Amino acid sequence: MIVRTTDEITDTDRDVTSADGNWRSKRIVLAGDAVGFSFHETTIAAGTVNEFHYAHHVEAVWLIAGDGILTDLDNGEVHQLRPGTMYLLDGHERHRVEPVTEMRMLCVFNPPVTGREVHDEHGVYPLVEDPSRV
Amino acid sequence: MIVRTTDEITDTDRDVTSADGNWRSKRIVLAGDAVGFSFHETTIAAGTVNEFHYAHHVEAVWLIAGDGILTDLDNGEVHQLRPGTMYLLDGHERHRVEPVTEMRMLCVFNPPVTGREVHDEHGVYPLVEDPSRV
Repeated sequence: MIVRTTDEITDTDRDVTSADGNWRSKRIVLAGDAVGFSFHETTIAAGTVNEFHYAHHVEAVWLIAGDGILTDLDNGEVHQLRPGTMYLLDGHERHRVEPVTEMRMLCVFNPPVTGREVHDEHGVYPLVEDPSRV
Repeated sequence: MIVRTTDEITDTDRDVTSADGNWRSKRIVLAGDAVGFSFHETTIAAGTVNEFHYAHHVEAVWLIAGDGILTDLDNGEVHQLRPGTMYLLDGHERHRVEPVTEMRMLCVFNPPVTGREVHDEHGVYPLVEDPSRV
């Protein structure tokens, strides 16, 4: 059993802020934990516009707080985001997230994020193999 | 992309209350979604004593609200649970959860729960194969 707290991982290498400062992601479970998924708390700042594309990962995002707009850039569909909304990127959809108020969400990635990925010029996380992965 | 809300799944077959009424689990992602994990919001009532054992699943639990006590029944270790605490059952540990105040947590299971499991006499979820699973 592993027990960790959000406070414990804050300001460690599990706590990542985007280069533009728009979002911050605290990864409490990563690929190195070898459980087949990673689990993150992500906050995105109010008034920002963020395009993401996880070409190699499925992601589920469940909003705890905040509201805004989600646009599926593959088909143009727009969804309202409020506390309790969950979106599941089961088709590697390119998407845009525009928080009206700061959003706080818990996110699950499969395969797990290793923590060493950076978004490339397309906003894509590469698939990084973790030697500790079982 | 799938978009759902906690409200939409409330009082559907994705919303399960334990036989003793101690806990309620809203499963927003299940095995049928075929993404390799399930994702649940679970509330456990204050003052209850709950023993769990997931012999076939890994589970990560991240507390959003509430506090209480977690006991690892395999080694007797006791952990305080507060908002922001995460526990990862990576070794199928038998464990006891005793909320002092109502706990609200987001939980990830691998392999995903199908939604048709019931806890058996040992508090174990059996491994149910989902024919829709990829």
